[in-house]
Amino acid sequence: MPKIVDHEQRRRELAAAAVRVMARGGVESASTRAVADEAGWSTGVLKHYFDGKDDLLRHVLRELERRNVERFERSKEAGDGFGAIVDAVTSMVGSDLDETRVWLAFVAKATTDPATTAAMRRAIAVWDGRWAELVLRGQTDGSIRADVDPDRVGAEIHALVHGLSSRAVFATRGAAHDVTVPLMLDALRPDVRGGRGRAAAARG
Amino acid sequence: MPKIVDHEQRRRELAAAAVRVMARGGVESASTRAVADEAGWSTGVLKHYFDGKDDLLRHVLRELERRNVERFERSKEAGDGFGAIVDAVTSMVGSDLDETRVWLAFVAKATTDPATTAAMRRAIAVWDGRWAELVLRGQTDGSIRADVDPDRVGAEIHALVHGLSSRAVFATRGAAHDVTVPLMLDALRPDVRGGRGRAAAARG
Repeated sequence: MPKIVDHEQRRRELAAAAVRVMARGGVESASTRAVADEAGWSTGVLKHYFDGKDDLLRHVLRELERRNVERFERSKEAGDGFGAIVDAVTSMVGSDLDETRVWLAFVAKATTDPATTAAMRRAIAVWDGRWAELVLRGQTDGSIRADVDPDRVGAEIHALVHGLSSRAVFATRGAAHDVTVPLMLDALRPDVRGGRGRAAAARG
Repeated sequence: MPKIVDHEQRRRELAAAAVRVMARGGVESASTRAVADEAGWSTGVLKHYFDGKDDLLRHVLRELERRNVERFERSKEAGDGFGAIVDAVTSMVGSDLDETRVWLAFVAKATTDPATTAAMRRAIAVWDGRWAELVLRGQTDGSIRADVDPDRVGAEIHALVHGLSSRAVFATRGAAHDVTVPLMLDALRPDVRGGRGRAAAARG
């Protein structure tokens, strides 16, 4: 058993090295040699852990996904559904910029490469479901209004997180220091009064 | 004068051909030959209009920008600031998917290429300003609540439009048929009651 754990951990370390390489030079720059150099291992070791570049890319995506799921799961500890969404959104938008850079490279690749398109579609569907689940939780505990469709709101949260994360990469200051709870479009309504106490409190 | 107009128009046509090529194969696929073939002209003609590939890329970005500004300007005809934002967001999210594909390729390029990073930062700043201007208009005409920072809300609208547009590229159905007015996070508040009549009406 320890051997399997080590194997998984080593793969993660190597995938993390690939993330750093890609963040500097794009997805295509993550050659076996570049990743091995970054990780401090030989290319032979890398070939032992990954069956070619496509397999490495798959594991990089899996590593990015794992980190975001970890953030998402931690956010569930919040007292209610709305609080969990606030925590998840802010921790994901405030995540490591290298992760977002690599993610953006995959998004671009997904516009032209069919296998990556399929992976992106699956990822979006899974995240929509995760967000919808939190919306439903909030509707059950009363922290989110009952008259909205969780799937639709889930999709919008996903869009907002993607948009805010993308912006953070191009912010002149580090984005991690400037993550606020989004106000969002419907909050623009002038007579939206009663609902703001809680959101304002969450915003700190 | 007519000659200058023709020159500009021909450049736009060629840039539009480049958008189609890039949407299929990514930014790098837009070789002089591929774009000339797509446009139905010789590479010699293309070289007459663009001073190398970087110049072509600049004009492609300018063409995408021109189309979005056109949508944005049209939306200003709405009766108030909130209505203008609703129209602008939906028309931009519902725009041609080829445009978004190319835009996503530029975003990825901007994570590693310094010149594209600078162009992306400028574009984001200009769009933030445009959205903030509409928010301010809405605050002036009473259609948007007065206690929010237009710059901050403008940045969030930009993020949402980017996120929803990106999702549309990976939707299984065509996104143009499924563009709804975003509900947004603060609209999740359970006691947000008074403010929804208008948004619901806009949503149809």
